[in-house]
Amino acid sequence: MERRNFLKGAAIAGVGAATLAAPAIAQSSKTMTIVSTWPRDFPGLGISAQRLAARITELSQGALNVEYFAAGERVGAFDVFDEVASGNSQAYIAADYYWVGKHPGFAYFTAVPFGMTTVEWNAWIKFAGGQALWDKISGEFGLKALPCGATGTQAGGWFNKEIESADDLKGLKMRIPGLGGSVMSKLGVSTVSLPGGQIYENLVSGAIDATEWVGPYNDYFMKFYEAANFYYTGGMHEPGGGLSFGMNASWWGSLTDWEKAIIEAACMEEHAAQFEEAMAKNGEYMAKLVNDHGVKVRAFNDDVWDSFGEASEEVFAETRDHSPLAAEIDDSFQAALRDIGGTMAKFETTFVNQRNRVLGLT
Amino acid sequence: MERRNFLKGAAIAGVGAATLAAPAIAQSSKTMTIVSTWPRDFPGLGISAQRLAARITELSQGALNVEYFAAGERVGAFDVFDEVASGNSQAYIAADYYWVGKHPGFAYFTAVPFGMTTVEWNAWIKFAGGQALWDKISGEFGLKALPCGATGTQAGGWFNKEIESADDLKGLKMRIPGLGGSVMSKLGVSTVSLPGGQIYENLVSGAIDATEWVGPYNDYFMKFYEAANFYYTGGMHEPGGGLSFGMNASWWGSLTDWEKAIIEAACMEEHAAQFEEAMAKNGEYMAKLVNDHGVKVRAFNDDVWDSFGEASEEVFAETRDHSPLAAEIDDSFQAALRDIGGTMAKFETTFVNQRNRVLGLT
Repeated sequence: MERRNFLKGAAIAGVGAATLAAPAIAQSSKTMTIVSTWPRDFPGLGISAQRLAARITELSQGALNVEYFAAGERVGAFDVFDEVASGNSQAYIAADYYWVGKHPGFAYFTAVPFGMTTVEWNAWIKFAGGQALWDKISGEFGLKALPCGATGTQAGGWFNKEIESADDLKGLKMRIPGLGGSVMSKLGVSTVSLPGGQIYENLVSGAIDATEWVGPYNDYFMKFYEAANFYYTGGMHEPGGGLSFGMNASWWGSLTDWEKAIIEAACMEEHAAQFEEAMAKNGEYMAKLVNDHGVKVRAFNDDVWDSFGEASEEVFAETRDHSPLAAEIDDSFQAALRDIGGTMAKFETTFVNQRNRVLGLT
Repeated sequence: MERRNFLKGAAIAGVGAATLAAPAIAQSSKTMTIVSTWPRDFPGLGISAQRLAARITELSQGALNVEYFAAGERVGAFDVFDEVASGNSQAYIAADYYWVGKHPGFAYFTAVPFGMTTVEWNAWIKFAGGQALWDKISGEFGLKALPCGATGTQAGGWFNKEIESADDLKGLKMRIPGLGGSVMSKLGVSTVSLPGGQIYENLVSGAIDATEWVGPYNDYFMKFYEAANFYYTGGMHEPGGGLSFGMNASWWGSLTDWEKAIIEAACMEEHAAQFEEAMAKNGEYMAKLVNDHGVKVRAFNDDVWDSFGEASEEVFAETRDHSPLAAEIDDSFQAALRDIGGTMAKFETTFVNQRNRVLGLT
């Protein structure tokens, strides 16, 4: 009875409000608890996650009432997977390659070495079979994921010395998660995966010598230059892809079509916005890094790239051997990369290289 | 009274539905008539526009009740601007460079020669001042526009002979709108702007010798290969950018914040999806063009690109001379191109070129 009266009241209130074009208050509300791997107000990734959380409430007019918890506020950064799989919370925001220990196939749903750029990856996820495979691997753990943010091609990383050959990597201790970390391991690097909020202390203390994070805008606020002053441009390890909005699959299944549509639209909007915001701000923060903090910008040479290429072939062979599902995901990903990336090479890359040559952009 | 009864009935009907987490029918509804420049069910652009129209109704649960009219169903393709500016319809879907005759500054809100890729342009529009300038130029005509689709870097076009130097362009009659058309005019091409639905007949009749349209997926269905068999990869004229959802500004101003949010989210979702769908399908349709229709794929050589570059400098100088607003838009665009595109060159382009070299993608 209480709900019936509320509904009648809402409808009658609607009649009197001349500018009211849609319900101001939803007839019922579902609480959606989101747990994040990013610290509160973290520039770039954290702010983007908070914007997404608020947008779901806004677009649904509170029918989905989101409560957002940053890393450590409800559970630790790397505990969000179990928190959501168990149903204690409804969704996490993370990079799914953090879960390669549970299944190496998760790496493909963030980014893999020599993989797809964000645009190519989006095309695979949405229009070339990627989402169905993501649903398959997530489903094995009681989860359903959607893309919810992207960084673009990440910087090769922060080092305390120049890397002029693969030999220079040997013996380094580096924070680099996912299959990119496996490639570095093949080249003699001792790798570790750490949440964003714990990298700086490990780098400054000397527990690690090197780290990758994202790109100039996100990296600026991390102050890695205090301990590692050589900054490498586009690396092999995370060329694109996206972050994940991982929901409890049973909870997702309980939603109405409209609630699902609102979540999808909010995720797609933020998936684009996070990426584009970083692209818009990277130049400004790159200049600050160089001019205000003396950062030395370098590009890996062809020899280093060739070594990365050989090591990543081994990594993909091992990943495929894990399970039929890992091989199925790799098949789909590698085929999409060659089809989509190969075709973009004829159009966008041809243009970009000619434009940059003619205008002198480097 | 009729409306009041309808509203009460809707609320009562809602009570019985156990899974109803939000209103099934909005308490009031605003009709939104959308007129499009694309023919009904046109593969690529037309289907994308129809998907966007349906999504606004879906996400708003009918509070915004969209009626969609394809080109010619309500007004002709190039009449949509006046239709919406006058308030007869609420929104158009088009490429804003169709309106360069009204103001050359509109070109920057689709794509300009040697300009930004879609990702770069998105970053400018959303995070580097582009939207404010778009609002300024649209506002002069009583309009408010949002991005609602993107093609990626377009193909250089369909020609009935090989183009090995700028001299080979002289005397050609080509369909190429916007500032790209102005560049071709500088090189001795006789250019024309035609809506998509009228290009084929003009090409087959010989009224034009050459045309550009979009890229393999969109172009396949146009059958241009019947009359012009040389297909050029990434061209200078439309490297990226986006299509526009142009609304009557007074109508936009009358909407609630929530209605605006729904329209923004739907546009951003489709802006990404249209682009990514084309990237996912271009490879398949490129293969069909070559294997089933004997299309000969070519790339413009460096000499042709250099000629394009010189001609486009003249075109930008003339565009800036049009008005202070045209110069203001060009200033912002060119600065963003060098900042955003220059930084992406260090990250994404560095990676893509190394990946394509190591994997042998061309």
